[in-house]
Amino acid sequence: MKPDITIDFSQVGKELHRLMTRLFPICRSLTGPGVRETLSELSRYLPLQVHEVPSGTEVFDWTVPREWSVRDAYVLDPEGRRIIDFQENNLHLVGYSTPVDQELSLEELQNHLYSLPEQPDAIPYITSYYRERWGFCLSHRQRESLPEGNYRVVVDSTLADGVLNYGEVLIPGESDEEVFLSTYICHPSMANNELSGPMVATGLGQWLASRPRRFSYRIIFIPETIGALTYLSRNLEHLRKKVVAGFNLTCLGDDRTFSYVPSRAGDTLADRAALCVLKNHYPEFKNYSFLDRGSDERQYCAPGVDLPIASVMRSKYREYPEYHTSLDNLELVTPTGLAGGFEVLKQCIELIEANRSFRTTCLGEPQLGKYGLYPDVGTRDSHKRVIDMLNLLAYADGAKDSIALSTLLDIPPARLLPMLGQLFEAGLIEAVPEGNLP
Amino acid sequence: MKPDITIDFSQVGKELHRLMTRLFPICRSLTGPGVRETLSELSRYLPLQVHEVPSGTEVFDWTVPREWSVRDAYVLDPEGRRIIDFQENNLHLVGYSTPVDQELSLEELQNHLYSLPEQPDAIPYITSYYRERWGFCLSHRQRESLPEGNYRVVVDSTLADGVLNYGEVLIPGESDEEVFLSTYICHPSMANNELSGPMVATGLGQWLASRPRRFSYRIIFIPETIGALTYLSRNLEHLRKKVVAGFNLTCLGDDRTFSYVPSRAGDTLADRAALCVLKNHYPEFKNYSFLDRGSDERQYCAPGVDLPIASVMRSKYREYPEYHTSLDNLELVTPTGLAGGFEVLKQCIELIEANRSFRTTCLGEPQLGKYGLYPDVGTRDSHKRVIDMLNLLAYADGAKDSIALSTLLDIPPARLLPMLGQLFEAGLIEAVPEGNLP
Amino acid sequence: MKPDITIDFSQVGKELHRLMTRLFPICRSLTGPGVRETLSELSRYLPLQVHEVPSGTEVFDWTVPREWSVRDAYVLDPEGRRIIDFQENNLHLVGYSTPVDQELSLEELQNHLYSLPEQPDAIPYITSYYRERWGFCLSHRQRESLPEGNYRVVVDSTLADGVLNYGEVLIPGESDEEVFLSTYICHPSMANNELSGPMVATGLGQWLASRPRRFSYRIIFIPETIGALTYLSRNLEHLRKKVVAGFNLTCLGDDRTFSYVPSRAGDTLADRAALCVLKNHYPEFKNYSFLDRGSDERQYCAPGVDLPIASVMRSKYREYPEYHTSLDNLELVTPTGLAGGFEVLKQCIELIEANRSFRTTCLGEPQLGKYGLYPDVGTRDSHKRVIDMLNLLAYADGAKDSIALSTLLDIPPARLLPMLGQLFEAGLIEAVPEGNLP
Repeated sequence: MKPDITIDFSQVGKELHRLMTRLFPICRSLTGPGVRETLSELSRYLPLQVHEVPSGTEVFDWTVPREWSVRDAYVLDPEGRRIIDFQENNLHLVGYSTPVDQELSLEELQNHLYSLPEQPDAIPYITSYYRERWGFCLSHRQRESLPEGNYRVVVDSTLADGVLNYGEVLIPGESDEEVFLSTYICHPSMANNELSGPMVATGLGQWLASRPRRFSYRIIFIPETIGALTYLSRNLEHLRKKVVAGFNLTCLGDDRTFSYVPSRAGDTLADRAALCVLKNHYPEFKNYSFLDRGSDERQYCAPGVDLPIASVMRSKYREYPEYHTSLDNLELVTPTGLAGGFEVLKQCIELIEANRSFRTTCLGEPQLGKYGLYPDVGTRDSHKRVIDMLNLLAYADGAKDSIALSTLLDIPPARLLPMLGQLFEAGLIEAVPEGNLP
Repeated sequence: MKPDITIDFSQVGKELHRLMTRLFPICRSLTGPGVRETLSELSRYLPLQVHEVPSGTEVFDWTVPREWSVRDAYVLDPEGRRIIDFQENNLHLVGYSTPVDQELSLEELQNHLYSLPEQPDAIPYITSYYRERWGFCLSHRQRESLPEGNYRVVVDSTLADGVLNYGEVLIPGESDEEVFLSTYICHPSMANNELSGPMVATGLGQWLASRPRRFSYRIIFIPETIGALTYLSRNLEHLRKKVVAGFNLTCLGDDRTFSYVPSRAGDTLADRAALCVLKNHYPEFKNYSFLDRGSDERQYCAPGVDLPIASVMRSKYREYPEYHTSLDNLELVTPTGLAGGFEVLKQCIELIEANRSFRTTCLGEPQLGKYGLYPDVGTRDSHKRVIDMLNLLAYADGAKDSIALSTLLDIPPARLLPMLGQLFEAGLIEAVPEGNLP
Repeated sequence: MKPDITIDFSQVGKELHRLMTRLFPICRSLTGPGVRETLSELSRYLPLQVHEVPSGTEVFDWTVPREWSVRDAYVLDPEGRRIIDFQENNLHLVGYSTPVDQELSLEELQNHLYSLPEQPDAIPYITSYYRERWGFCLSHRQRESLPEGNYRVVVDSTLADGVLNYGEVLIPGESDEEVFLSTYICHPSMANNELSGPMVATGLGQWLASRPRRFSYRIIFIPETIGALTYLSRNLEHLRKKVVAGFNLTCLGDDRTFSYVPSRAGDTLADRAALCVLKNHYPEFKNYSFLDRGSDERQYCAPGVDLPIASVMRSKYREYPEYHTSLDNLELVTPTGLAGGFEVLKQCIELIEANRSFRTTCLGEPQLGKYGLYPDVGTRDSHKRVIDMLNLLAYADGAKDSIALSTLLDIPPARLLPMLGQLFEAGLIEAVPEGNLP
């Protein structure tokens, strides 16, 4: 199970950015060869099992679509120059464009062009899943410079029965209770939304495999929406029984901010851990509502599904100007941005792993000095340590877990977890019910 | 069961104002001929059952009083002119005045006169239920103009055993669970407090009779306090078993504001519906506490009675300057004021009728387009519609009723109810437990 | 059981200050003759049972210490004058100082001296329970005036096996449920922290003995921390079964403010009563958190102990400048200060005694006039009385106790308790379950 490529975690941001750079040019869509190529590359990092679900399969209220494949697509200008070229940037072609090979005037062509007047240098990302059409996307600046004359448009694409693919890996832990990480691999060349998600998922996968685990971790790489629905339709019972917490991994690579979208329930273990980490260690984060949702939590938190899944992100989809354009690129997402996305999820997982209800083992306050927990020389910091420890002991009544103690006593997770470890080692607290700290 | 007179609801305010104008001059009191005359007129609109309870009947801690009847009452000035005349305005006579026929000086007369120096043009409304006395009310301006001399006062009244009357109508619905509407008919010539209450009750009665009903509706026209106690003493067990919500209908006719007094419990179905309608559709309403109560909710919400009854009003009793004076007249209460009072209660009732817990019927988000619920052409409004529908589907987990969904998703009832209807028609939501939308 | 000395409650502040003045010079410590002398003096006021627990007894995580006795301790200056003298002020000697008789230079002496540069006139209070050493405390002003030369230091002390003493009295009431009052007697010559606590405890004991009691009252006089742990280790099961509320009595004698530290649970009967009294009658009080704790609630509220014990104080330990210095003296604590400390606890206890859930005995509002509860002549105050009474009757539904009614209806305890008494006398309310007002 040793991967072909091992991430050096001292450089996690750089390494994930390098991997992202390799995956960036691939033309991904809901289905098709781009998805398979992406999963194949990720399999060098994680032992992914790649699943296939045939087109036409019913999944809840939906149907698995046909595969869309593009061999080439371009527009020739009146002088025969390839001025809009899918080979150069796969965003140039409207997703799910039907085949065409035709000459037309600029005026006719305009009906098939998409650009953003208010962002004149950006190529927009457009798809047309439900209505058959073809089209090209380009920068508004380029569009305005197009001369009158006859153009030739070629889309050499196929829409045919095939399969929907997704990758899955289970990293087992002490318990068969699972933490569920989901990310998606259906976007063409865009970086924050959405190669950053699979990058951080890959990093977390290798990191988790390298450490002792209380919980088992299931990571899936799926196409958004239809993939989540497909996965749920095949695994719902298992997920509902086993998943204790989970995250939808998306938009994890830029440098600007941190963001949070709760699960629908709002107070699951995933939510509590995420909020505890964010409030303490990233206090400037943006706190959204489930009403601001927009990714696979739409399926995971639907009534009757009700998985405990939240989203911790950097700049959230729909909220940053480069979203769904060619400006969401390898410069917007940076090594530090990815390292930060990886780090915040790592902290959430560490808190989930260490989240137990504790109970003091002695009645009344213990004599900390007996356990070497009382400082010989008092400093401001050691005084604060003693106060925090006495507070932990005073509130460890078996009813409050680590997250509750952090919040109640205003001790950030990064201080709290080692302190709970020390008290546990000293025999002054025990986990309820019986259990060890990971 | 067809009424003598049918209200034209396109003109509900005007029609109720016309009825009010006919009832205005009648001298109502807790008991007696004025009450009977009023009930008789209302019976032309609703099939009222008129009940009689003999004087002296014990009702809880109280006793049904004797009937007070007035044939005539006036004051003659030194020149023999009828200057204060019960025939001209029944507020001129203190309620429950004992008989008198006597000459006296102005100074002696003053001991029996009541006026409001700070509202010099208003005749105050005064009663003396518990202490035997006679007296006259007049404007302060008139009082100050009274010349010295000998006056003659005549009160030709009787206080004798009789009955307490009240009217009652039950408008049956699909369920024998009841919505209870109570209003009072014990005030002489005053309009907001209190002919507006019976007017709106009458309008609601005809409107309810004309539409399909999930619940049964019980409307009572009673004297305030002693009537409510009397009604409770005879029907408490039934009410406690059957009433799911109710409103005390009072002060529903002026044009100025809307007001709300909660039930004592504060979170009954009546309260939740009223607050949902008021916050969304009348956001400037005045939100009072049960500590500001002052009408029959004092009895309906007493410990051991505990009916789910709230008050939705226009200008609340005791809070507007004309309250309990001759200025609370047919000009203060207007057709638009009455129409507004009728409308707000109608909206509360519609929301109660449509209040169910809903559950989505499919797992994951449905594909709205399949049901014709996705707009062909996107507009700002259609986008908002889709968002609202997806939010409704995302939160319809069988645990939240219409009112909770309105509040949580910030969708006003007037938008929510048709939208729930559409989702229900499309088979995308179902009521929990089984049941149909009305 | 009649005490030797009876407090005159019309002068409670003065009498407690007089007693405090007699006890002030005694050198108290965790154990030893000073504690016994103090308990013996208090026994003239209350029938204390004095307990002995041998040194070396294990109590939870701790051990009962040996007895520390001091016969004399002083420093002679180069001219042989007794310049630092334990006989003059027992704060001059570091608590638990080991014996010494030695000459040394000023420089060597300095290593054993303690003073407060920022409070140059105060002698600090220092103890060294866990590390063997000797030392002297003095004002910084005196320290700076010490001339060079040879000094002689003498500490004639013993640390030997003995006993830990505490005093206890049970004042039985109708019920064997107990209110628990704990105070401590382990501090040398300091007044607010801590002779004021035993003073108020003594006053409350005599006051309680003189009135009818619904609850039984247990008062203990213990050394702080080790005494509380010792008491708990011997009585925990009984306390957990019987104690319905309690207070840790400390810092009750200065004139400046009132303070409150909740129990860990925060909403026990003691907390609710204290907050109700403080918010209504001492609205400027300082509201601390359990995280600000610092006295025996650390033991009483520890997990697994969980007694319902709060602290109502005047200036809280650690929060006033004179704390733990010689400035915490008989001038800082005043007769009015002590009277106020006594009074606030008395009010808390009165509220606890009268705290019952009430239920109205009639359905609907009663006719207050029948019971003489309706004023003949209306004044602003009598109007407020009627409103308050009607509100009490409207909310007395058997689910709300006196404290809840006070809060909900904004009626201060001092108004509420007599009013509940009147309604109870009139038969309009009854206690739930059956029970009489004390």
